Amino acid sequence: MSLKCGITDLPYGGAKGGIVCDPRQMSSSELERLSRGYVRAVSQIVGPTKDIPAPDMYTNSQIMAWMLDEYDHIREFDSPGFITGKPLRLGGSKGREKATSKGVLYTLQMICDLKGIPIEGMRVIIQGFGNVGSHLALYLHEMGAKVVGIADELGGLYDPNGLDIPYLLENRDSFGVVSNLYKDSLSNQELLEKECDVLIPAAISGVVNKDNAKRLRCEILIEAANGPTTKEAIKILDAKGIVLVPDILANSGGVIVSYFEWCQNNQGYYWTEELVDERLKEKITASFLNVYHTSQKYSVNMKVAAYIEGIRKIAEASQLRGWVRF
Amino acid sequence: MSLKCGITDLPYGGAKGGIVCDPRQMSSSELERLSRGYVRAVSQIVGPTKDIPAPDMYTNSQIMAWMLDEYDHIREFDSPGFITGKPLRLGGSKGREKATSKGVLYTLQMICDLKGIPIEGMRVIIQGFGNVGSHLALYLHEMGAKVVGIADELGGLYDPNGLDIPYLLENRDSFGVVSNLYKDSLSNQELLEKECDVLIPAAISGVVNKDNAKRLRCEILIEAANGPTTKEAIKILDAKGIVLVPDILANSGGVIVSYFEWCQNNQGYYWTEELVDERLKEKITASFLNVYHTSQKYSVNMKVAAYIEGIRKIAEASQLRGWVRF
Amino acid sequence: MSLKCGITDLPYGGAKGGIVCDPRQMSSSELERLSRGYVRAVSQIVGPTKDIPAPDMYTNSQIMAWMLDEYDHIREFDSPGFITGKPLRLGGSKGREKATSKGVLYTLQMICDLKGIPIEGMRVIIQGFGNVGSHLALYLHEMGAKVVGIADELGGLYDPNGLDIPYLLENRDSFGVVSNLYKDSLSNQELLEKECDVLIPAAISGVVNKDNAKRLRCEILIEAANGPTTKEAIKILDAKGIVLVPDILANSGGVIVSYFEWCQNNQGYYWTEELVDERLKEKITASFLNVYHTSQKYSVNMKVAAYIEGIRKIAEASQLRGWVRF
Amino acid sequence: MSLKCGITDLPYGGAKGGIVCDPRQMSSSELERLSRGYVRAVSQIVGPTKDIPAPDMYTNSQIMAWMLDEYDHIREFDSPGFITGKPLRLGGSKGREKATSKGVLYTLQMICDLKGIPIEGMRVIIQGFGNVGSHLALYLHEMGAKVVGIADELGGLYDPNGLDIPYLLENRDSFGVVSNLYKDSLSNQELLEKECDVLIPAAISGVVNKDNAKRLRCEILIEAANGPTTKEAIKILDAKGIVLVPDILANSGGVIVSYFEWCQNNQGYYWTEELVDERLKEKITASFLNVYHTSQKYSVNMKVAAYIEGIRKIAEASQLRGWVRF
Amino acid sequence: MSLKCGITDLPYGGAKGGIVCDPRQMSSSELERLSRGYVRAVSQIVGPTKDIPAPDMYTNSQIMAWMLDEYDHIREFDSPGFITGKPLRLGGSKGREKATSKGVLYTLQMICDLKGIPIEGMRVIIQGFGNVGSHLALYLHEMGAKVVGIADELGGLYDPNGLDIPYLLENRDSFGVVSNLYKDSLSNQELLEKECDVLIPAAISGVVNKDNAKRLRCEILIEAANGPTTKEAIKILDAKGIVLVPDILANSGGVIVSYFEWCQNNQGYYWTEELVDERLKEKITASFLNVYHTSQKYSVNMKVAAYIEGIRKIAEASQLRGWVRF
Amino acid sequence: MSLKCGITDLPYGGAKGGIVCDPRQMSSSELERLSRGYVRAVSQIVGPTKDIPAPDMYTNSQIMAWMLDEYDHIREFDSPGFITGKPLRLGGSKGREKATSKGVLYTLQMICDLKGIPIEGMRVIIQGFGNVGSHLALYLHEMGAKVVGIADELGGLYDPNGLDIPYLLENRDSFGVVSNLYKDSLSNQELLEKECDVLIPAAISGVVNKDNAKRLRCEILIEAANGPTTKEAIKILDAKGIVLVPDILANSGGVIVSYFEWCQNNQGYYWTEELVDERLKEKITASFLNVYHTSQKYSVNMKVAAYIEGIRKIAEASQLRGWVRF
Repeated sequence: MSLKCGITDLPYGGAKGGIVCDPRQMSSSELERLSRGYVRAVSQIVGPTKDIPAPDMYTNSQIMAWMLDEYDHIREFDSPGFITGKPLRLGGSKGREKATSKGVLYTLQMICDLKGIPIEGMRVIIQGFGNVGSHLALYLHEMGAKVVGIADELGGLYDPNGLDIPYLLENRDSFGVVSNLYKDSLSNQELLEKECDVLIPAAISGVVNKDNAKRLRCEILIEAANGPTTKEAIKILDAKGIVLVPDILANSGGVIVSYFEWCQNNQGYYWTEELVDERLKEKITASFLNVYHTSQKYSVNMKVAAYIEGIRKIAEASQLRGWVRF
Repeated sequence: MSLKCGITDLPYGGAKGGIVCDPRQMSSSELERLSRGYVRAVSQIVGPTKDIPAPDMYTNSQIMAWMLDEYDHIREFDSPGFITGKPLRLGGSKGREKATSKGVLYTLQMICDLKGIPIEGMRVIIQGFGNVGSHLALYLHEMGAKVVGIADELGGLYDPNGLDIPYLLENRDSFGVVSNLYKDSLSNQELLEKECDVLIPAAISGVVNKDNAKRLRCEILIEAANGPTTKEAIKILDAKGIVLVPDILANSGGVIVSYFEWCQNNQGYYWTEELVDERLKEKITASFLNVYHTSQKYSVNMKVAAYIEGIRKIAEASQLRGWVRF
Repeated sequence: MSLKCGITDLPYGGAKGGIVCDPRQMSSSELERLSRGYVRAVSQIVGPTKDIPAPDMYTNSQIMAWMLDEYDHIREFDSPGFITGKPLRLGGSKGREKATSKGVLYTLQMICDLKGIPIEGMRVIIQGFGNVGSHLALYLHEMGAKVVGIADELGGLYDPNGLDIPYLLENRDSFGVVSNLYKDSLSNQELLEKECDVLIPAAISGVVNKDNAKRLRCEILIEAANGPTTKEAIKILDAKGIVLVPDILANSGGVIVSYFEWCQNNQGYYWTEELVDERLKEKITASFLNVYHTSQKYSVNMKVAAYIEGIRKIAEASQLRGWVRF
Repeated sequence: MSLKCGITDLPYGGAKGGIVCDPRQMSSSELERLSRGYVRAVSQIVGPTKDIPAPDMYTNSQIMAWMLDEYDHIREFDSPGFITGKPLRLGGSKGREKATSKGVLYTLQMICDLKGIPIEGMRVIIQGFGNVGSHLALYLHEMGAKVVGIADELGGLYDPNGLDIPYLLENRDSFGVVSNLYKDSLSNQELLEKECDVLIPAAISGVVNKDNAKRLRCEILIEAANGPTTKEAIKILDAKGIVLVPDILANSGGVIVSYFEWCQNNQGYYWTEELVDERLKEKITASFLNVYHTSQKYSVNMKVAAYIEGIRKIAEASQLRGWVRF
Repeated sequence: MSLKCGITDLPYGGAKGGIVCDPRQMSSSELERLSRGYVRAVSQIVGPTKDIPAPDMYTNSQIMAWMLDEYDHIREFDSPGFITGKPLRLGGSKGREKATSKGVLYTLQMICDLKGIPIEGMRVIIQGFGNVGSHLALYLHEMGAKVVGIADELGGLYDPNGLDIPYLLENRDSFGVVSNLYKDSLSNQELLEKECDVLIPAAISGVVNKDNAKRLRCEILIEAANGPTTKEAIKILDAKGIVLVPDILANSGGVIVSYFEWCQNNQGYYWTEELVDERLKEKITASFLNVYHTSQKYSVNMKVAAYIEGIRKIAEASQLRGWVRF
Repeated sequence: MSLKCGITDLPYGGAKGGIVCDPRQMSSSELERLSRGYVRAVSQIVGPTKDIPAPDMYTNSQIMAWMLDEYDHIREFDSPGFITGKPLRLGGSKGREKATSKGVLYTLQMICDLKGIPIEGMRVIIQGFGNVGSHLALYLHEMGAKVVGIADELGGLYDPNGLDIPYLLENRDSFGVVSNLYKDSLSNQELLEKECDVLIPAAISGVVNKDNAKRLRCEILIEAANGPTTKEAIKILDAKGIVLVPDILANSGGVIVSYFEWCQNNQGYYWTEELVDERLKEKITASFLNVYHTSQKYSVNMKVAAYIEGIRKIAEASQLRGWVRF
């Protein structure tokens, strides 16, 4: 998170906290009490000008709402900026839900632009058809790209002429599964190795690794998931000339709009969805260019360049504050 | 106030407080001490992130200024967002004075648009020629409407060819009275029953009631005042097919710009009058459409629709915070 | 400062504080400890909603950074709005460095506009080639004006056909001196008395005084420095018909962008350099017109008019708050 | 409460708050949530240096403990002085439970001393055998007084030779009822009219009224309950020469030890039961003498004198603070 | 004040603040507003754990009460420990009024004890018959000393057999003047030079100076006033062997009981007058001995010894806190 | 610490914090910066009503002073109760230094009393001659006990007729070593096994273990050190009938006087050394009896009884606060 905030120039640091429990085993009332208890435990060290929680695994906007309510009670005033990912009604931001997929899209546009690959007709494979993957598939479809491959938890679909994304979205089952809509599905692994222009792993970590990296047939790989490519795989991809857009850049749309939500809470005035979208594009595009130029300047891949930029900004701030001397 | 903030989507609740006194009997120094004393009494339960006072009956921007100064002393820092309706010099908003009349105008434009009544040549009767009524009359006059009737405290004027609003504004006496400028004035009651396209009661409550409702000869009634139409009258108007734009929607311009004032105080950066106006129009127009669609959806009049929307938003917020379960 | 904030309509008062020491004799570590100690001493009476320090003589953005860090420690949360002139990385504003020179430029444009002097071909003399003077010279050069005279600490340059500003900027020595680039330099004093359209003293106070004022041959004098013109000199200039744009107006660009920095800190959202520039122009232009109209209305020079406006706004605020009665 | 605090010279004002509910119908978990919710609702206007809740009807030390825990969470530090009547383990005071009965005893000793009635052999009737009445009966029995009458909810017992208090205490049933231990019980009303030296109504209000007052056969009446004697009855008692020790004096032992609990919380150091007892005696004795002397000075009964003293102290404080002018 | 607090071991520093005005020209309402305004101006830098005001010239307990009330309003809770010298009703201490005279008495007892002068029959001259002098005269009279001389603003009285203090106290006029009760009064100056065991200047500064010091005929001089003895006079007294008890020791009773008032406010529990007196004696006696031993150890007079002790304690605290290094 | 506070009934919980560093390698200035940095890091979660640090290994009163000064700066007011173990000059308590040894002495007196062993003539062996051991040896010697054995880091001394403690104290070297004062010293281990009435390990943990426990020849073992007896050893001692006074009881004098220091800081009034001593004795004696009775009641040794009492009190508090349900 710290590096992600660094490369996107957010005035934030970064940390994670969690509770050891199985939320799927808990009633709504138990979840509420747990959420409130968590806020009570950390209330002294969080706050809109200290450390700002945001949703992550197994938390949703309802949980953020309970946490906000608890915090407001402790503070005795309304402090919506204490937390992000809130429901719209309680100070959330428009465009928060689609933020990550939009962010991936904008980095994809940037890299294609630089590489001279037109979106129109471009062949894309997206592994994962959850919140990020499905939105992304539709955006690309609408922009004229051919989404040739899609995978969900159970398997993948592949059609070199492009899949019918609107049809898939309309017909997915209640678990979001689409791979069973066609007879001829293939496995997740097989799909990754199909030929395409852009490959977007948007599900879990480690799917591109030393075993399959050499068989990848894409020009660009965008890490929409966290850490889908292993260290060893990255070396192989570098050698093959496949350009990788790193996760802390590609999927930073979520934290950027969380930041926008906080800005809106600070002023109390709320932005239209269009404005959120425009500023997200502006911010992620600038971050992309910055990382890209660093990769050029130091002749390193974008993964390394992203780390350079992220660490550099933290280092500068620490030095200016007098915490470290170099 | 709560419902008004609900339908206009302000991040506010709503309440009223007052002091039992006769401000007209009090010296300026007594008013100042009373205003400061009030703030001392409520200081713990108000604040820019708690509950934000705004001017209402018998309070003006000077009183808000004294209250702010007292609050600042208690807090030991400047907190202009604690109160709205302040003088410009102390953090007030441009456009606050005309906010209510502008708001009425925008809802009028919306309903006329929907009903296909062109503003140009439209016949309007306005009951009340105070701050709201007189501004409104001028705006409509400038836009080409015919203001055929006007009433003040002492009586009414009526001219089927349209009154000369600029003349009236220039010649009203020091109490704002214009009904004595012509020989042939008529009573307040008579005026309400004259034929027109749009009738705008902008003075006191209860003027349209079960006694006169059936004799009204307008197509549209806009409640610029608070509660000018009684429950029984609304039933009669519904039966006659007269469209009523309810008060909590029509006259919400004041609280909307109070909210804008608070937003500006939060950032410390102040908006131009044009921007205030543009955002007011945006907000009240969206609120109008929302209420209008609800009235269509549930086949109810706009009064009921406004209540549905206002209550729904409070209910949603209460549920999300875990205060109620449905 | 109070008057400067008054005429530019900033929601600020004004004061100065300092430490009796010689920062040039101190190590970086001593400066850091001194800066932190200063914040500890004044922490109770400063703050983003109380009194906001900004850099002045012998302080730079590093010192502001140490002060911010100390303040954040005392408050136990991040409070970037407590101080302005911070480094960008810690919440500073874009465009802060060029703010004063831009401000001088905008007032120059206004007065030339009013006097009907086209920038194109206009002859300008700038005394001082530091941060303000050198930026200003370049802006004017780029806009087509002829910078006929420049002075630095050691002497002046004069060329009735206009100096080659880009050449001078590129070739100044490490102390910023340019007057030794040509053989035929003249003294600071001689330069001031050369003929030109606009004379801009941008160095130290008192350079235009009762001794040389009568020999000035400009139409307009813009006080970019603080107090470059003495009281007696102003009387002489008035008599000669030379228009003087006073310092608290002309060089207010710095405090205006400090104010913008605070506004950005309040919301946590940061402006582009273009937006900072646009809003600076807007604000200083409005202030200029206000002072100019007052000078017309009361038939006084702009120096007096600036004082009238500055004092009037403080007086109004004091009266509204109930601190004084007139 | 205000008057009670006034006559006992506590640095407190006085107020009561409550929740409309039937605690007997609620589970322990519901009571806990209700108690916490109450604290959340009032947290801004209570506190150890603002307004300090204490237990009253249907609240016990467990409820105070929940309330304290909630308050501590809101404040984010331990603040035991926010509430009194806490369990010992969480900062309660020793001697709190017996405080009211001890207080009644000390006022009884004072008045008997003044009237020359020796405790030894004195005949006492106590109406009410709850917490206050039963403790008091035992203290008096141990000091050699004859408790000739006792009443509980179901009836009364009378024995001119003195009842066997230890026996009654040991044999009362689980509801505290003793009147069924003997065959010859009498009614509550009959008991009140029996001859005795001291009559102590220690149950409910209004038991001595215009109907039975003239038939009372005691020398002294001590109001251990709140308001057991009606206005009309007091006039009759005055006429009969029966001395009445008023409730706000006689039963002030509870609030006095609540005050001691707060003092102990303020220092964090806790007193022995002996010290609590000694200081309670000191305080209530001084209050008694003060009220008694006022009754002598103004030739009024002690009820009126208690009101004079209570109001006088509030008036003095209000005048010194500048809230009122006389 | 800092030295006084140092030698008496109070956990206080010391400072003075004032308002330039003539309180004798002001109405009660003006004084109230001035007092409240003063608190508003300094509220951020005072407080029970910061800096605690106490009454001094032209302030009384009513003024302290207004100041407390203002402070309580700003803080929104009761904070009696913010100020001392309050009325008893609002948290003042018993024994505050007589504190200074009691303190003088205790130092007198100590020095007489050490010098072997019995109080019984001891001849004392007291210059000043105000609050300090008159109380002191009575205490000494009651203990068997002979008060042979007294002076007030208009003159002095002298009787080698001892004056009749109770008679003087009963018969002083409304300005406290007694010197006109006898025909044979003498001047202030003459009185100082009369023979006695102990001379106590208790009025104004500088009365014992280089002109009259050599004519003094006492064994001990106790500075009850502030600075009654000049530097030059002290040298002469040293040479004559007259022992001087310095003012910051002798008249420290006032600040000591102010400190006790604050301690009582901290706990909320109030001490009896006896306890205040006992602890005052304990504290001033220990301070006396400490100063006395220092004077013995370093062979300096008690004036110098008091300075040594006062400065030493401030130095130790400063060093421990890391503010200075020696 | 939690159990220690539990059995001594202090209103505290318990925790430890530390810094990984070697203070012996650091300059005074480095130690100061480290101490201040530590306070900055934890300032939000400590405080006089939250969590109160006290000195432990490698910290002394100077370090506490720096920490207090840092905390006071952050809080902007004086808050001596934030930390204990402060120097007297900054709010420390008298008697803090000798508190642990006094506490050991009082538990020794209690157990001897209960076992009928007179102090007079009693044979004691003390292992450890540091702060605790040396003070204790002197107290016992003065009370007529025979200190027959002493050990320091280098070895032990033994004399069945009692060692000359004053001689040892006067002649110990600069490292506190005394075992080299006599020729015939013995080892630490040998000393522990000598015959005596009371054995007091006052140095390090684990000295009495399964290897030597069976050879111990004492009646009573008092754990002045932390954990000097292993679990296995305790079983052996139980079997041999040796009574063990557990460490969390025996050496609780330090934390008790830390608590007293905090109480004094809360009121601002400081106790005499006699009072500190008296209250320490009172508290530790009551704790001893409570643990002793529990050991009798449940027929367990005092180690187990101490745990029962410590845990019981934490459990009660947790249950009352609603944190746990049993």
